[in-house]
Amino acid sequence: MSGGDTSMRAAVMRDHALHVEHVPAPVPGPGEVLVRTLACGICGSDLHYLKHLDQMSAFAERTGSAEHRRLSAARPVVMGHEFCAELVDHGPGTDKRLRTGARVSSMPVAITSDAIHAIGYSHHYPGGYGELMVLSERLLVPVPDALPTDLAALTEPMAVGRHAVEKANLGDDDVPLVIGCGPVGLAVIAWLRAKGAGPIVAADFSPARRALAEALGADEVIDPAAQSPYLRWQDLAWPPGSDRAHPLAAIVGPRPRPGVIFDCVGMPGVLNAMLEGAMRGTRIVVVGVCMHDDRIEPLLGISKELNIQFVLAYTAEEFADTMIALDDGRLQVEAIITDRVDIAGVPDAFERLASPDDHAKILVRPS
Amino acid sequence: MSGGDTSMRAAVMRDHALHVEHVPAPVPGPGEVLVRTLACGICGSDLHYLKHLDQMSAFAERTGSAEHRRLSAARPVVMGHEFCAELVDHGPGTDKRLRTGARVSSMPVAITSDAIHAIGYSHHYPGGYGELMVLSERLLVPVPDALPTDLAALTEPMAVGRHAVEKANLGDDDVPLVIGCGPVGLAVIAWLRAKGAGPIVAADFSPARRALAEALGADEVIDPAAQSPYLRWQDLAWPPGSDRAHPLAAIVGPRPRPGVIFDCVGMPGVLNAMLEGAMRGTRIVVVGVCMHDDRIEPLLGISKELNIQFVLAYTAEEFADTMIALDDGRLQVEAIITDRVDIAGVPDAFERLASPDDHAKILVRPS
Repeated sequence: MSGGDTSMRAAVMRDHALHVEHVPAPVPGPGEVLVRTLACGICGSDLHYLKHLDQMSAFAERTGSAEHRRLSAARPVVMGHEFCAELVDHGPGTDKRLRTGARVSSMPVAITSDAIHAIGYSHHYPGGYGELMVLSERLLVPVPDALPTDLAALTEPMAVGRHAVEKANLGDDDVPLVIGCGPVGLAVIAWLRAKGAGPIVAADFSPARRALAEALGADEVIDPAAQSPYLRWQDLAWPPGSDRAHPLAAIVGPRPRPGVIFDCVGMPGVLNAMLEGAMRGTRIVVVGVCMHDDRIEPLLGISKELNIQFVLAYTAEEFADTMIALDDGRLQVEAIITDRVDIAGVPDAFERLASPDDHAKILVRPS
Repeated sequence: MSGGDTSMRAAVMRDHALHVEHVPAPVPGPGEVLVRTLACGICGSDLHYLKHLDQMSAFAERTGSAEHRRLSAARPVVMGHEFCAELVDHGPGTDKRLRTGARVSSMPVAITSDAIHAIGYSHHYPGGYGELMVLSERLLVPVPDALPTDLAALTEPMAVGRHAVEKANLGDDDVPLVIGCGPVGLAVIAWLRAKGAGPIVAADFSPARRALAEALGADEVIDPAAQSPYLRWQDLAWPPGSDRAHPLAAIVGPRPRPGVIFDCVGMPGVLNAMLEGAMRGTRIVVVGVCMHDDRIEPLLGISKELNIQFVLAYTAEEFADTMIALDDGRLQVEAIITDRVDIAGVPDAFERLASPDDHAKILVRPS
C-alpha cells in the first residue's frame, strides 16, 4: 500500500503521545483491499507501545524481528489491531471474492512480496484507530450475518485466549488457575469454560475484573489481597480429606489432579510467585507480556519439575474458529465491553484503561 | 535404621568441611539391609552441599520438602549417593530375595513408615563416602554379573541423563544442543546417542570435557569462547542453503528442524542466553541445578514461544533401565571415570573437581 492524496481522521501515536488529527488515507496495493473501520478494541499492548515504543523497537532490532516492528517515535503510527471493518474498495490484482459492503475481520498482518507488516504497529499500515485501513485480501475473514459488529471486533483478543488454552494441552482432569483477569485473562477463562475445563479458579485484585471473570465462567474468583489463589487452587486439586502434610504424601495415598496456571499479568515477580505456588508437575502458560527483566529461582522449578510455556498470538485457524465461536454461542463475552468511544475519545480511553478497576475492553467506533 | 556400637571409616561433612574419621556404623531397621560400599561417584551436588548446605536447608524448610533435606551444618553427614555395594546383612522383616555377597545398587532413598530419607543427604542414612550403608530392601537393584562395579556406580548419574532426555519428548527430527559437558551433560549426550538422536551439538569451555563429549557421542563439540554454539546449532537445524534472513522466511520456504537445548550448567545467565539463542518453538530442558536467583527476559520467551522444562532425578524404571543399558552396551561411558580414590582421598578429590578441566567423574572406593 501507499499513502494517498485523500486524508482520514485518526488517533495517531507520535512522540509517545496520542494526537487526534488528519493523516493521509491508505491506498490498497496489489492483492489488498481498502476497508472502513467499524469497531476496534483497545489492547493492553497498545498501552505498552505508547509507553515503551523505544524499548520495543530496540528489542525488535536486537532479535531480528520483521522490519515492521522497528518503529520510530518521531513518525506517526495509527494503532489498533482488534477490528471489524467494512469492505470499501478492491485494489489491483484482487479476486474480489468478497463484495464491497461486506463486513470483515483479519489477523492484523499484511503480507507483501518482501515483508510482513503488523497492522497497527507500522508506519505504513494504519490500524483501527483511524477511519480507513488496508488489509490483505487473502487474510479476510467474513463476519457471519448474525454476529454483531462489536462482538466481531473481539475476535482478535479472544483468539489469544484460544491459543493459550491450546498450548496448555489441557487434559480432562486439569485444574486451571488464571492469574490476572484483564482482557487476556478473561479470554482464557471464556475458552476454558467453552472447553468444559474446571473448576476454573481466577484471581485479580480488582473487584470489577473478578465480577467479569465470574460472568465469563470462572467457578471461583479470588482476591489475592485476602487469600492465596495458589493455596485455594491446590485445595481444589487435591482429593477432599487428603493429608498433604503427611511425610509420605509424595509416594502413597491419593494424588492431586494436574494443574495448569495461566500468567495473564505480565509483571515482574509474577512468574516466580507461580513457581513458588505451583504443585509438582504444574505447567505454567505465560500469556501476559512482561516488558521488563524478571527474577526467578530456578531451584523452585527444578524441585517440582515445572514447565513454562511462553505463548504469543494465535494461528489463522484459531483466529477463524474464534469468530465462529463468537457466532455460535460457545463464547459468551459481551460483558467485557465496558465502553465505546469515537476517535476523539481514544486518548482519554487510554488514560482510563490505566486504572483497571473501571474497564476491561473499550471499543473505538470511528464513525 | 539406628546408629550402632561398631564404627566405620568415612569422609564426613561437618561445619562445611570434610573430615576423614570414624563414625558409628549404621544398623538396618525393619525392611532394610546393611551393605558394604564398593564404589561411589562424587556428584556435583555434593560440592554444592559442602558450600551451600545452609541455603539448601533453608530452601527445604521453605518449600516443605521432606525432613531429611533439612540438614544442620554442625551435625555429621556422610554424603555419596551414586553407589554400587555388596549385601552384608539383612535386617528384621526382610524377605531375603538377594543373598549376602550380592552386588546391588539402589535409588538413593530410604523409605520408612513415617519418612522418606535421602541417602547421603541425611543425618540418619550415611552415603557411599563411608564403608557401610543401610538401604531399603525393596529398592535394591541387583547388578548383572558381567557389569563391572565401577560402571554400576554410574547408574545414578546416567539415570539423570535418561530422565532429562525422556522429558525432552524427542521427535525423530529434533536437533539437540547440550550446553555444559560435566557429568550431567555427558549423561545427556550418552543417552541422546543411545536413542539415535542427532546431530548432537555440545559446548563446553573445557577442552578435556569437549573431548569426553566427543567420546560419548557428540557429533560436534564447540568451544563457546571461539564460536557461538547457538549459531552453529541453528546452521545444522536449517536446511542447507535456506535464506534465514529473508523477510518472509517465517512463512514461506523451508523450515528448520525442531530444536531442543539441554541446560547442563546451572549457573546464572545461562538460561537467558538460551532464550536468546533459541529458535522459534525450541524446548529448553533445565537439568543443571542453579543455586542462585537468575535473571530472564520473558519477552524473548514470548516472541519465540519457547518452552522451559525443569527436570529432577529420574523414576525407578529409568534407574533400572539405565543399569541394563550399562550392561547391554547401549551406554558406553567408561571414559568419564577420570580417577579413583579411597576414603582418605575424598577431601582432595572435592578440591580437584572444583577445576573442571582435569576431571569428570571421580569414584570413591572405600576398601
